[in-house]
Amino acid sequence: MLEVKTAGFELDRRLEADTRHVMWLGLCELRLMDDRRWPWLVLVPQRRGAVEIHDMTPLDQTLLIFETNMVAETLEDVTRCTKINTGALGNIVRQLHVHVVARSEGDPNWPGPVWGHGQREPYRREDAHRFADRIVSALSPKR
Amino acid sequence: MLEVKTAGFELDRRLEADTRHVMWLGLCELRLMDDRRWPWLVLVPQRRGAVEIHDMTPLDQTLLIFETNMVAETLEDVTRCTKINTGALGNIVRQLHVHVVARSEGDPNWPGPVWGHGQREPYRREDAHRFADRIVSALSPKR
Repeated sequence: MLEVKTAGFELDRRLEADTRHVMWLGLCELRLMDDRRWPWLVLVPQRRGAVEIHDMTPLDQTLLIFETNMVAETLEDVTRCTKINTGALGNIVRQLHVHVVARSEGDPNWPGPVWGHGQREPYRREDAHRFADRIVSALSPKR
Repeated sequence: MLEVKTAGFELDRRLEADTRHVMWLGLCELRLMDDRRWPWLVLVPQRRGAVEIHDMTPLDQTLLIFETNMVAETLEDVTRCTKINTGALGNIVRQLHVHVVARSEGDPNWPGPVWGHGQREPYRREDAHRFADRIVSALSPKR
């Protein structure tokens, strides 16, 4: 098991370049993959040195699945998708991050995976903001 | 949220055809993907009607991540792989199942995903048994 620390966490540069900040959760930063082909969120646990989920403490693992599933359920509600795809791969970017993707029949590469398929197609800036706002609103406590 | 029941659980026929039984965990049946291109395990929670992880109760979700991570850590130890890939996709087989795959640099489609890549290459029966035995042994309590 790796030594996992909170302090001095720095987001991987490739993740930073490919995604946009959405909001802070308890353990994770929630980011939007800047690829308009699919509604695609990424959770990044703020734990320095974590590569595999099992590198984290049992409490952090529980928090991660709680936050992942909260995000998955919200993304399903917002997009009315056919299926949620979740994955932790990290073959290219080793910093631990969890993908939550809304898939719909007939979307690019359906029913295959999103990873490694074609080229990323960035959002127009205002479309990214609008989608992120919908996610933040749906995840925020109702009054 | 779907109604999720234990009783009357039946393994999806496609999953049954593509994988082999390895052992029973607490919540899940652990199965081996019958594809010798990658060391690839599949966890199937014994919950009728579960499609998304968030369809399950919080306790079942916690059990699922506990079992998934135990399997992931074991698979990493047994294979000395470069990276574990975990995923819950279900675009083809809707019954909830979690993939845990040992990836190594230079393996087929590295660093891309295993899902949807080429054709499955079944093990020779004795090789499948040998690999499953190593997993069972590594997952079993030490005396």
